[in-house]
Amino acid sequence: MTVNVGIIGATGHTGEELITVLLDHPRVKITGLYNTSEQPQVISDVFGQFKHKIDLTCRKPNLEEIKSKCDIVFLALPHTVSMILAPKLLALKKTVIDLSADYRIKNIANYEKFYNIKHKDKANIASAVYGLPELYRSKIKTAKLIANPGCYPTAAVLGLAPLVALGLVNTDSIIIDAKSGVSGAGKKVSKEFLFLEINEDFSAYKVNTHQHAPEINQELTNLSNHKINVVFVPHLLPINRGILETIYVSKNPKQKTQDLTKLYKRFYNKEPFIRIKKDGEFPRIKDVASTNYCDIGVKDFGNQIIVISAIDNLLKGASGQAVQNMNIICGFPEKMGLA
Amino acid sequence: MTVNVGIIGATGHTGEELITVLLDHPRVKITGLYNTSEQPQVISDVFGQFKHKIDLTCRKPNLEEIKSKCDIVFLALPHTVSMILAPKLLALKKTVIDLSADYRIKNIANYEKFYNIKHKDKANIASAVYGLPELYRSKIKTAKLIANPGCYPTAAVLGLAPLVALGLVNTDSIIIDAKSGVSGAGKKVSKEFLFLEINEDFSAYKVNTHQHAPEINQELTNLSNHKINVVFVPHLLPINRGILETIYVSKNPKQKTQDLTKLYKRFYNKEPFIRIKKDGEFPRIKDVASTNYCDIGVKDFGNQIIVISAIDNLLKGASGQAVQNMNIICGFPEKMGLA
Amino acid sequence: MTVNVGIIGATGHTGEELITVLLDHPRVKITGLYNTSEQPQVISDVFGQFKHKIDLTCRKPNLEEIKSKCDIVFLALPHTVSMILAPKLLALKKTVIDLSADYRIKNIANYEKFYNIKHKDKANIASAVYGLPELYRSKIKTAKLIANPGCYPTAAVLGLAPLVALGLVNTDSIIIDAKSGVSGAGKKVSKEFLFLEINEDFSAYKVNTHQHAPEINQELTNLSNHKINVVFVPHLLPINRGILETIYVSKNPKQKTQDLTKLYKRFYNKEPFIRIKKDGEFPRIKDVASTNYCDIGVKDFGNQIIVISAIDNLLKGASGQAVQNMNIICGFPEKMGLA
Amino acid sequence: MTVNVGIIGATGHTGEELITVLLDHPRVKITGLYNTSEQPQVISDVFGQFKHKIDLTCRKPNLEEIKSKCDIVFLALPHTVSMILAPKLLALKKTVIDLSADYRIKNIANYEKFYNIKHKDKANIASAVYGLPELYRSKIKTAKLIANPGCYPTAAVLGLAPLVALGLVNTDSIIIDAKSGVSGAGKKVSKEFLFLEINEDFSAYKVNTHQHAPEINQELTNLSNHKINVVFVPHLLPINRGILETIYVSKNPKQKTQDLTKLYKRFYNKEPFIRIKKDGEFPRIKDVASTNYCDIGVKDFGNQIIVISAIDNLLKGASGQAVQNMNIICGFPEKMGLA
Repeated sequence: MTVNVGIIGATGHTGEELITVLLDHPRVKITGLYNTSEQPQVISDVFGQFKHKIDLTCRKPNLEEIKSKCDIVFLALPHTVSMILAPKLLALKKTVIDLSADYRIKNIANYEKFYNIKHKDKANIASAVYGLPELYRSKIKTAKLIANPGCYPTAAVLGLAPLVALGLVNTDSIIIDAKSGVSGAGKKVSKEFLFLEINEDFSAYKVNTHQHAPEINQELTNLSNHKINVVFVPHLLPINRGILETIYVSKNPKQKTQDLTKLYKRFYNKEPFIRIKKDGEFPRIKDVASTNYCDIGVKDFGNQIIVISAIDNLLKGASGQAVQNMNIICGFPEKMGLA
Repeated sequence: MTVNVGIIGATGHTGEELITVLLDHPRVKITGLYNTSEQPQVISDVFGQFKHKIDLTCRKPNLEEIKSKCDIVFLALPHTVSMILAPKLLALKKTVIDLSADYRIKNIANYEKFYNIKHKDKANIASAVYGLPELYRSKIKTAKLIANPGCYPTAAVLGLAPLVALGLVNTDSIIIDAKSGVSGAGKKVSKEFLFLEINEDFSAYKVNTHQHAPEINQELTNLSNHKINVVFVPHLLPINRGILETIYVSKNPKQKTQDLTKLYKRFYNKEPFIRIKKDGEFPRIKDVASTNYCDIGVKDFGNQIIVISAIDNLLKGASGQAVQNMNIICGFPEKMGLA
Repeated sequence: MTVNVGIIGATGHTGEELITVLLDHPRVKITGLYNTSEQPQVISDVFGQFKHKIDLTCRKPNLEEIKSKCDIVFLALPHTVSMILAPKLLALKKTVIDLSADYRIKNIANYEKFYNIKHKDKANIASAVYGLPELYRSKIKTAKLIANPGCYPTAAVLGLAPLVALGLVNTDSIIIDAKSGVSGAGKKVSKEFLFLEINEDFSAYKVNTHQHAPEINQELTNLSNHKINVVFVPHLLPINRGILETIYVSKNPKQKTQDLTKLYKRFYNKEPFIRIKKDGEFPRIKDVASTNYCDIGVKDFGNQIIVISAIDNLLKGASGQAVQNMNIICGFPEKMGLA
Repeated sequence: MTVNVGIIGATGHTGEELITVLLDHPRVKITGLYNTSEQPQVISDVFGQFKHKIDLTCRKPNLEEIKSKCDIVFLALPHTVSMILAPKLLALKKTVIDLSADYRIKNIANYEKFYNIKHKDKANIASAVYGLPELYRSKIKTAKLIANPGCYPTAAVLGLAPLVALGLVNTDSIIIDAKSGVSGAGKKVSKEFLFLEINEDFSAYKVNTHQHAPEINQELTNLSNHKINVVFVPHLLPINRGILETIYVSKNPKQKTQDLTKLYKRFYNKEPFIRIKKDGEFPRIKDVASTNYCDIGVKDFGNQIIVISAIDNLLKGASGQAVQNMNIICGFPEKMGLA
């Protein structure tokens, strides 16, 4: 059986990456590419590397065409555009995997505050499933609408889940120092993303005010008995892809000391895309770049615990995880097309 | 004696570099900064590195103010803007050092073809002096209007001048394969100059159609008895600054073989900013980056001669050379502020 | 049917890339990894990205083991090591695909001059097939020993083959200005390959003396009626992977002008890994990086023809081409595992 | 008056940077260059950019020569080498500015533990002055032996000094997440510093075990009433130069809230090399690279305070600060040669 797949937003970074991954997927046929540009664009003119590999033209989304051509639709769109299209696609009985932020945050007021816009499809928020397979695999299996996680939250939540779920740390002093390659920022043509602004430079941005913080807080709070409010500072790395997060937590004094590396290995025992580093070792971006893996290293220093978590922002942090979710929904082996 | 200097176009790359150089020049006071933006801009807000170093606000050029405040005016402007301002400044009896292309090309038709615009100040083209000190030092001393050379032509002409001036090579098969860092391209905010487009990539552009070719041809033809028409292919390097040009010429069979390294050393014997590599050695960008030097290596392989020439595109290829010209005009030591 | 494959030299760049490609190949099983290190090395300890993907330990090559375990053996070794091992493997009736230079150059004196070593397996040089499928596909099908081409020669020969084979250019003035990413250089731990030596720098090396020149000359001479001796200048790009070569040739005046883009498209009509750019367009490294494609752009400017050719040095320039050769030998579809 | 200066360790990164700075210093003459290499090295052969600028040959240190030629000696040496030479130079009545770690840590046991070596000049540790002008200017004026601070400690201590000295923060939960360009690591030729290992990668190293931690702790403890033990995690950035440290502290609940930006501006009111960012703004490496400035941004978020501090690791983090110390000792204006 082959699943027919459409991608709306095919000419952005996550769209490009989705095409790359899906072209190699043995059970997928890409049947439609769409974006919001007025002019049709031959996809291999936009991305030269697709020449001789895929021959489709990217057009404005046409619901009639999608209805007949696609079983599953990926929305690789900026937030605020997804929530216009998703309800229409759900009405056509299509499964929707949304890579934007529009359905991630259950608390609408929080969404509206951080994204500074009114939500236009409140009806579907509650039933959307947060697409982090390591935490929500059974719900994903039957989901009609996947809210695919943000890149920073994926690394943060996977890095912290064992400690928070098992109550091993103080939940009121979690610090996440995050560093991301440039592709995390989308394809905006603006001064701040020029080569000369980024090359040989490094800086923080949106210091403790980034819109991924409420998403991290929501998921960690779900795992804990306490309301969690992390300190979150993202920085921009002069590299194309990859995220590394250095996470500082302090031990819950009521808990006894444990071998954290063993504990993480146990917690993620059957996970196909989580690799725990040996005790005393920590991940590097190079090992996860262009893969769907999340590498995690953890060590305690007396009361201080340091966790370092690394992913590829475009794969495990976006398009790879979206395909992992598709595999779960379709009953395919979870690593299919991703290894 | 201190010379009062104004910079029009202070917020571009060459403007930034001019400020950097002139701040360290012991005989210069920067008395005015101008650009074409509607809003005044505190220069240290535009360039954070100037904080606590220079306190001026950049405004639209005001001729009355310039008249009273500045002895010499640098035009660090895009071509087509310089030719509007230069005649007005010359009318005020100011010495003008123009870093744009507007006064470099004596053949107006050629200028208009390659820059695709009508020239608006034909009257001043003839008297403008091409500001390459190694070739035109004596004319520069008394010039009122300097046409500061382009970055590619500076490296090309300095690399070829000894061979062409002495008639040692075939003038009908000169090939210049040029590679430039990104700052050569100005500060355009466009897709092609985004970090993700340039980092980990490399490509040619304007293959044999670049607007610097007629400038190179003009200067080489001036040095020769023949009309020269080079093959010129520029490429974009994923680095901030520096140009390296690999130049291929064939020996004039009527001339006998010479020790080219010695010949180059003799030709540039007293030049403060030309360094000839030892026989068999060739320059690298690292050695000239952030300096006003031009490093040149030359070697013959039978009938084939290979010359490699390297400069910093913002200094010897623009602002440094402009200050070198200023030093010559003012009678300062030529290396002042540039060593 | 599955083919069992061994890799000797598994811990170098080309070895790493071979493993990456072969892990995704549906008809290959990697059954042995070998290198020259005294200590056995778990391959996923050497390359973190292979963790959970391949579980083999890399040991010194053991002929008995190879005899029983491997059908095809890739030699991803430095030149001079291959020629010791290849005859032993051939004696075991194994098919050998050698990625080193040891069997590429038919003229032994030339090999010994450029590689500065005595050849130790002269007997097998004549029967080794130069593994450039676009020129030697039918011979490759039945080859026992493949001399997999060098990275620079692959881009150069593919870029020039149509012009040279059809006699369209002067064969005595071919200039190849080549630029390569750092992985072309192997994994030598030496000062010149330190980050601080390469980042933000650019330079030529082995100017017109590189050991790939005789290989290029051999293949072009084979295609022509004349002895060809190119001018070849390689440069080092501050990027991880990819080669771009800018090639300058002059028209054979006896031939009439043709549409070169059409001619190239016809010449490479059925080639699965050659993509010819539209007239007036030229390749960039980004489009071929991490692929097995060779992109070529060609244009004439009067008597001057400029060809630009780009490949990934580790794939089409090494391991990808080796797998393409393996596919041909095994009768697999040529793009299998490489698309 | 001109001061005669010798540099021992002239061919390392900090040596190169010292030469660069001192060549521009109007009151300095470099009279001797030394290193530990057996062969004399013409300095412009080692560093091509110094050609035509300085003509000295670097030799093994000769005490007789130093005695007669140099007033001040900079030791740009690896730790453990400085402590052999410093006492000999002090015996010659030379002022010594040591850029190594050998005299920074007053607690000898701590030094010996973190540097894993016996100290060989315990006698001079106590009188050595820690060369951070912002804290020790008056002692520096009369110092005979300066222990020039480490790069990470300079950024950390300057970033935290106001908060710690004024008792505004909890001293038991200071977290420093530090990121450094590659030149911070010295010039070791080892696999980990190869271009291919660092480019497009990012990782932490010596997680909470770096030898700069005891230096930071010593200085912060001196400023406080409490013993301070920071959490310190350094990371390696794929850039040539610059350090940025993101520092997380929590408010001392006994203190009332203050305008921290104002407080920092007041604290560093007269400092020539400290620039405090406007409220809500944070530094970037680009603004401090190749300068002697330390840029600091600070902001509180409820009980959480975030400080970001940036310097150039080779200037304010090493050679620039060394020259600043020399200026103070010699009675020169503090910014001389450094602006």
